[in-house]
Amino acid sequence: MKKEIVLLQEEMDKENIDFYLVPTSDDHNSEYVSDYFKCREYLSGFTGSAGTLLVSKDAAWLWTDGRYYLQAAKELEGSGITLMKDGTAGVLSIPDFLAKEMGENTTLAFNGKLYSTAFCMGLRRKLAGKNRRMKIDIDLVHKIWTDAPKRSCKTIYPFEAKYAGTPVHEKLTSYREYLKKHNADCQVLNGLTDIAWLFNLRGHDVACTPVFLAYAYIDLDTAILFLQKEAVSEETATYLEEASIEVKDYDSFYKFLGSLTGKKILMDQSDLNFYGYQSLNRELRQIPGQKYTTQAKIIKNDTEISNTKACHLRDAVYMTKFMYWLKHEIKKRNLTEIEVADYIDKLRLSDKLALDLSFETISAYGANAAIVHYTATEESNAIIEPKGLLLVDSGGHYLDGTTDITRTFAMGPLSDKERTMFTTVLRSMLHLANAKFLAGCRGSNLDCLAREPMWEMGIDFRHGTGHGVGHVLSVHEGPNNFRYRVTKANLDAILMPGMITTDEPGIYLDHQFGIRIENELLCTKWKQNEYGAFLKFDYLTYVPIDLDAIDIDLLSEQEKMWLNDYHSSVYDKIHPFLTIEEQEWLRKYTRAI
Amino acid sequence: MKKEIVLLQEEMDKENIDFYLVPTSDDHNSEYVSDYFKCREYLSGFTGSAGTLLVSKDAAWLWTDGRYYLQAAKELEGSGITLMKDGTAGVLSIPDFLAKEMGENTTLAFNGKLYSTAFCMGLRRKLAGKNRRMKIDIDLVHKIWTDAPKRSCKTIYPFEAKYAGTPVHEKLTSYREYLKKHNADCQVLNGLTDIAWLFNLRGHDVACTPVFLAYAYIDLDTAILFLQKEAVSEETATYLEEASIEVKDYDSFYKFLGSLTGKKILMDQSDLNFYGYQSLNRELRQIPGQKYTTQAKIIKNDTEISNTKACHLRDAVYMTKFMYWLKHEIKKRNLTEIEVADYIDKLRLSDKLALDLSFETISAYGANAAIVHYTATEESNAIIEPKGLLLVDSGGHYLDGTTDITRTFAMGPLSDKERTMFTTVLRSMLHLANAKFLAGCRGSNLDCLAREPMWEMGIDFRHGTGHGVGHVLSVHEGPNNFRYRVTKANLDAILMPGMITTDEPGIYLDHQFGIRIENELLCTKWKQNEYGAFLKFDYLTYVPIDLDAIDIDLLSEQEKMWLNDYHSSVYDKIHPFLTIEEQEWLRKYTRAI
Repeated sequence: MKKEIVLLQEEMDKENIDFYLVPTSDDHNSEYVSDYFKCREYLSGFTGSAGTLLVSKDAAWLWTDGRYYLQAAKELEGSGITLMKDGTAGVLSIPDFLAKEMGENTTLAFNGKLYSTAFCMGLRRKLAGKNRRMKIDIDLVHKIWTDAPKRSCKTIYPFEAKYAGTPVHEKLTSYREYLKKHNADCQVLNGLTDIAWLFNLRGHDVACTPVFLAYAYIDLDTAILFLQKEAVSEETATYLEEASIEVKDYDSFYKFLGSLTGKKILMDQSDLNFYGYQSLNRELRQIPGQKYTTQAKIIKNDTEISNTKACHLRDAVYMTKFMYWLKHEIKKRNLTEIEVADYIDKLRLSDKLALDLSFETISAYGANAAIVHYTATEESNAIIEPKGLLLVDSGGHYLDGTTDITRTFAMGPLSDKERTMFTTVLRSMLHLANAKFLAGCRGSNLDCLAREPMWEMGIDFRHGTGHGVGHVLSVHEGPNNFRYRVTKANLDAILMPGMITTDEPGIYLDHQFGIRIENELLCTKWKQNEYGAFLKFDYLTYVPIDLDAIDIDLLSEQEKMWLNDYHSSVYDKIHPFLTIEEQEWLRKYTRAI
Repeated sequence: MKKEIVLLQEEMDKENIDFYLVPTSDDHNSEYVSDYFKCREYLSGFTGSAGTLLVSKDAAWLWTDGRYYLQAAKELEGSGITLMKDGTAGVLSIPDFLAKEMGENTTLAFNGKLYSTAFCMGLRRKLAGKNRRMKIDIDLVHKIWTDAPKRSCKTIYPFEAKYAGTPVHEKLTSYREYLKKHNADCQVLNGLTDIAWLFNLRGHDVACTPVFLAYAYIDLDTAILFLQKEAVSEETATYLEEASIEVKDYDSFYKFLGSLTGKKILMDQSDLNFYGYQSLNRELRQIPGQKYTTQAKIIKNDTEISNTKACHLRDAVYMTKFMYWLKHEIKKRNLTEIEVADYIDKLRLSDKLALDLSFETISAYGANAAIVHYTATEESNAIIEPKGLLLVDSGGHYLDGTTDITRTFAMGPLSDKERTMFTTVLRSMLHLANAKFLAGCRGSNLDCLAREPMWEMGIDFRHGTGHGVGHVLSVHEGPNNFRYRVTKANLDAILMPGMITTDEPGIYLDHQFGIRIENELLCTKWKQNEYGAFLKFDYLTYVPIDLDAIDIDLLSEQEKMWLNDYHSSVYDKIHPFLTIEEQEWLRKYTRAI
């Protein structure tokens, strides 16, 4: 067994703990976590962005999803940890597994700050009986991880009005109206993107997510931010003072929860972590209700939309220049995955409004692209030859918006199979992007427009077709998305004008190749008539889709028209920012077929 | 004020009742009700199939939906009852209206057997405060309705093994396993289709629904049916005795509920009526849970499926002969809507296994078809001329299954608009019917395949695309359906092999015409591979779709192939049962286009 696991098992023994759970999370339920919080990676050696480790006295298991089956299998080799392929027939979920494996009088422990209250409530119901216990006020990993990185504490800065659109006092007013509507007096916020959006502040405590460590409290009169005081610049302090926002110490939040009395608190169990929930004063009356920010921040305001369009245009110019470079360079010499990723990253980060990449660039050649969320490492770094397919999924945070785009490029001759599958993925992307629909539809209603071209071939891809995109926040933002699986507990958002969602179907054939094509879609009004309000999508992304990889015979007339219209817009928008040579090339790569 | 209302108000006065509510329902929440239960019609004079009457000390209101605004306005003329157009802006719902109108210390009364517990719980929350009371153990209408029809009491007969497939003892065993899984000891059943399905019995107490008045009780050892004893034939008595099913008197059910103690009851508040709920012994521990039969009866067993196919074949022969007659007869003379309905009804009821129509046949010509649930009456009965479109929606209950089919026929020359819209409806029907999808999909995921051909034209239809079909039960059966709107409270069923759902998109243009094309679809397995289990639909309905009404230029190659394949199957299956003349005609009407 891996030595870090053995160390943990020794600590478990001291505390009389039978099972210890280590998710990929931080105290704020963030998707990406800063180095300080990378406990699961430290213990297991698995570097993927999603996965949960469970350790017992004599065994260990790691659950991860379809994107990471191959990568996890490789990274866990020799660790003694059993890979649990989440979502595969016969593989129990973690709660079900625990319910089965935990015997009489056993104890499960984990750091209760790393899980939402909703999850822990469900787990507790699952484990009821048999005198089983759940211990949540403990962090064994940082006890053994003696050289763990320090907690991040980067400077917090105001997100200016010209970028935020809606001023903080208006957002707070709306929040208070929302509280009153729900017959509540106050709410606490645990999620970092919600806090950054609400207070019009940004920071850099989490990789690829311009947010900062914080908790917040809002009631009908006051608003309190719990911050690491060293992170508060003078400018930010002045801004907060002018907005009448009180600042308290980050680490005093849980004590504050215990002191809160005489209020009706709007309780979002999917937001507040379980340790926080347990810290609440028992006298507080709880009213169940989603935090205001969840719905408010996914409808982008006019400033955010026009800024997003502007940054997407610059981003598309970088991507087009990158594609031009790729197509020419591969004729001269072989490339590598990392070299290619560095090239596009550098272009993006040269932008004068660039803040960060919006996630680590995926540059995956040939069979590597069949691993959905592959990241090239020094060891895996494949040599790109003038043949086959290269998948590049990348994006940036700019002060005026966030981008996320995937293109798959023909690096030279392709097999018929590669061409057929590329064309199928393109058809999927186009069918969803061109949907017209009545207001009231959810992403789950429309997802099958993208899936059907694949399903009719008996093929599927093991990820959502699309996710919401935060505005200079997390590139993954819910609850709007395109997924067909819904449950009572997890209904996706009704699509509304102003929402931004990606459209990124793919085909992944193990040990062969992987294809994904991703455009971002802005939901907009189409027409209003006696049947109601119809909506549609506008593209935000304007980058050529590689015509070298398409089998024209597989496209219907309608699909050709959709593609030609798109490429015509790409040319119109992008060519003014290119050199003469690039312009000529772009004309060819956006020609009507 | 209408004299029946005045009589009711006198009774209300005696009982100190301020508001009295009369819905369209029976003691079993049935969709269609027998004559004994038509209290709302008796009091108000309004004969539509949906509506609720509310009477106060000095006024009366009738709520009904868009289908019935015109008819209700006419029938209520001079009655003194105010028409409340449900769904119109500014018209309050009944609970909201009561919440507003009921003052301090007032009493609302109604027959609690006519509403589900779930509805009444919601109403009670709405009316909380102001010392308002709700009296539900009273039936004032049958007190004044002295010449009311007697409660129906038709003979109950066993639904033989060759029709039911699964014997009652197996169903009861599964029910008991379900109870154990939910940690419950017993459940009561209030819904008539659930009881008929579970006990393999049928009857004829409700129009167009071969069920009988009954309640049921199941625990881990016993099963009790509460029946009108005069309805129990000797054969049925023997059958029940052999199956160890106890019979008690129908009218002793509520007393029985009061006597039930020492059990954990699985409580389905959407099934049990409120009077029943209030009759339950207070000591009974309740565990919330859906009745077993809801999910069990929608997955048809092998016998039900092969029988359904057999009855659909005969039903299709009747429909094809009907179409042949229509197409020829209209060349000779004008027809009427009622005459046409009578013709197809007679063909169906001549079948040696026929039990009843599965609903009242809709025969709607020209502009009448734009009224979605139009029924031809002696007054409205339109004359069918050799032009335009005739919509016929009809079906039958046979001992071996239930059918529901809509065809729209060109009675002569059509306008371009009629042809375009007909072709669009056809495309919608075909796109949904030919879907391939991964197990886990719901109807709400697939609905937009049918809607998209219309939505892209800015058109919609105001009904679900499809509903589940009961097996010799109600032609409308949930929770499987094709609808895109879902809520947490009302998620549709996950589609599974063995489910039968209609596929019936339509286009309705006010004062012009209406088109609907409806086939029934059986969900079946398609293929299993590394992506999971793929499912598809098989047609159950094999009746020509009128080629006279199609604009071929609007169909893609794929759509033509779907239609041609379908018509080729129609010919193969149906022609052996036709005359030589009909066969020749069918060959033409199923030709490849």
